Amino acid sequence: MITSTLKTRPTSRAEDTRRKIYEAALKLFREKGFEQTTMRDIAAKAGVALGAAYYYFASKEAIVLAFYQEMQEDSHEAILEALRGRRKLKDRLRYVLEKRLELLAPNRKFCDALFKHAPDASDPLSPFSTEARPIRERAIEHLRAALAGGDVKVTSDLEPHLPYLLWLYQMAIILFWLYDRSLRQERTEKLIDRSLTLLINLLRLSGLPLMKPLRKAALGLVGAVAVAD
Amino acid sequence: MITSTLKTRPTSRAEDTRRKIYEAALKLFREKGFEQTTMRDIAAKAGVALGAAYYYFASKEAIVLAFYQEMQEDSHEAILEALRGRRKLKDRLRYVLEKRLELLAPNRKFCDALFKHAPDASDPLSPFSTEARPIRERAIEHLRAALAGGDVKVTSDLEPHLPYLLWLYQMAIILFWLYDRSLRQERTEKLIDRSLTLLINLLRLSGLPLMKPLRKAALGLVGAVAVAD
Repeated sequence: MITSTLKTRPTSRAEDTRRKIYEAALKLFREKGFEQTTMRDIAAKAGVALGAAYYYFASKEAIVLAFYQEMQEDSHEAILEALRGRRKLKDRLRYVLEKRLELLAPNRKFCDALFKHAPDASDPLSPFSTEARPIRERAIEHLRAALAGGDVKVTSDLEPHLPYLLWLYQMAIILFWLYDRSLRQERTEKLIDRSLTLLINLLRLSGLPLMKPLRKAALGLVGAVAVAD
Repeated sequence: MITSTLKTRPTSRAEDTRRKIYEAALKLFREKGFEQTTMRDIAAKAGVALGAAYYYFASKEAIVLAFYQEMQEDSHEAILEALRGRRKLKDRLRYVLEKRLELLAPNRKFCDALFKHAPDASDPLSPFSTEARPIRERAIEHLRAALAGGDVKVTSDLEPHLPYLLWLYQMAIILFWLYDRSLRQERTEKLIDRSLTLLINLLRLSGLPLMKPLRKAALGLVGAVAVAD
């Protein structure tokens, strides 16, 4: 269903080589783990010279970023398309969250290993880093699209900030899922369902006049946790 | 102000030795990092045989747990005492959170390194582990005490679950603080202030009849994230 933009583009020899290095790296990250894999291992596995590997990717971190980026770009149209068929905000947000987990699933193990980079915004592999900005913005865009066409009206003060807050929420869900040892990650499914119920309830109430101090407090909080970019 | 229970107890030679090993370990964790320190290094630094080190602590993980435990026990009375002088819930919660950060501060660097163990409940160093249960329960107790004597009335359905939810919130604050590179961790201070404002607002409103579905949704969420112990 998901087609790779790289695969459907007319391939050139350079792209073939880049792809070979990329696939070899992901395979090694899954097998040996990210930390244990070197650029030398990747070049060897791909059957290219070390210099060639570095020509395409400045570091193994760059390969991980390319993986996240590709995951975002490849799923972009499919996500927007799927949202067109869903009206309820809960279904729309659930779809975006579950799609994200579905895309991460084949590489769950190395994403798990990467998690320790996550909270440090100065680490390029952190979702909060400058390097990850285009990836982050795509993810936020999907959440913005889910919000915009749903059946819950959001007040104009909250509206511009909600996609980013939802993205932080999505990060928390991914973290929970990475460490969810339950069968078929049933606990994550439950968490998504219940947290979305809470969220939708909160959003529905948030428009009431008596909720204004709450909205103001929430917006104050946004200022304290926003990514500086 | 904070007195160590271990230090004030009548010391025996065994306790001196245990203490020596414990202090040597913390010093090494701070200097070399937790992962890079071995039990052999710890024994050498403490000037005891490796067997002696193992006699007192089954592993370096056990030393970290002893550190957290001691931090909790040593601060217990001081926290309860300080709460007696504070009436506003916001001040009470702020005190508990800031006290926790103050206690962690001298070992911030190795706590940071330990963070990657946090989300995996099967890891003894995770705050969610069975091994960490007594430490977790003490922390939850402090939050329960802060809630109980404050100026905000909580409905009886929420009341038993709030201390645990506040503890999850405290974990998020600690995580933010560990990676806060701002001067004197000013961003964390701001985050605490604003998130507490939001929380208090939410608690004040939560008792209203129209908030019942929200409370029900919040309680549903608790079931999905509770530690299984």
